[in-house]
Amino acid sequence: MADTLERTETHRLIASDKVEGTAVYNPQDEKLGSIANVMIDKYSGKADYAVLQFGGLFGLGSDHYPIPWDMLTYDTDKGGYVVNLTKEQVEGAPRHARDDSPEYTDEYGRTIYGYYGLSYPML
Amino acid sequence: MADTLERTETHRLIASDKVEGTAVYNPQDEKLGSIANVMIDKYSGKADYAVLQFGGLFGLGSDHYPIPWDMLTYDTDKGGYVVNLTKEQVEGAPRHARDDSPEYTDEYGRTIYGYYGLSYPML
Repeated sequence: MADTLERTETHRLIASDKVEGTAVYNPQDEKLGSIANVMIDKYSGKADYAVLQFGGLFGLGSDHYPIPWDMLTYDTDKGGYVVNLTKEQVEGAPRHARDDSPEYTDEYGRTIYGYYGLSYPML
Repeated sequence: MADTLERTETHRLIASDKVEGTAVYNPQDEKLGSIANVMIDKYSGKADYAVLQFGGLFGLGSDHYPIPWDMLTYDTDKGGYVVNLTKEQVEGAPRHARDDSPEYTDEYGRTIYGYYGLSYPML
C-alpha cells in the first residue's frame, strides 16, 4: 500500500519543457516515439496538439506528427502518454519534416482531425 | 490596409518551445521578463501557469514567478504577452529559484492565485 501511494502521481501539472521529450506508447506497449512539442492556443491556453516525433533511427530521419491532444492519455505508471494507434496508423498520418513549421489553418486542422476520425472543433 | 492584413496574426497556435522565451510586458510597455516555461495540466491539456523569468541582470540571478495563464494576453503587435502588473507587484509575488521545481499543491496554487487577487479554481 505504501508503495502504491508513493507511486501515485501527485503533480497534475508538468512543465512544457518536460512534456517535450516524454515517451508515447500505444496500448500494446509499443513505444511510438516522443513528444517534440505541444501546440498551444495563444489565447485560450489550451494544448491543441501534441507533436509526436516518430520514425527514423534514434531520432535521425524522424518526422513530426501533430496529434489532437485529447487523443493522448497520461499514464502515471508508464510515466508517458498512451495513444490508441498502431505504428501503421501513425505511418500514414499527416506529418511534416522536423524543421518545418506548418501553418495550422482550419484546412490543415480538418485534415489531421479527419485522419484520426474526429470532427474538427470549431472555435 | 494590406500592411494591416499582413500583420494580422493568422496562427492561433504556437509551439510550446516557442512560447518558452517569449517576452512579457506590462501595459506601460515595460518588459517584465520572458516566459521560462508553461505549466500544463497533464490530463486536460490546459496551460495553468506561465512561468515568468524576472529579475537579475541578463537572466543571471533571475527567479521564476508562476502567473495564472489567464492573466496573460497575447499581443500580436508586440509579439509577446501582456500582463497587468507593475514591476513592484512581480517583485513581491510567489517565486522560486530557477533550478527549483515546486510542488504545485492546492496550497501553493491558492497562494499564487491569492497574491494576484484571484480565486483558486477548483477542479
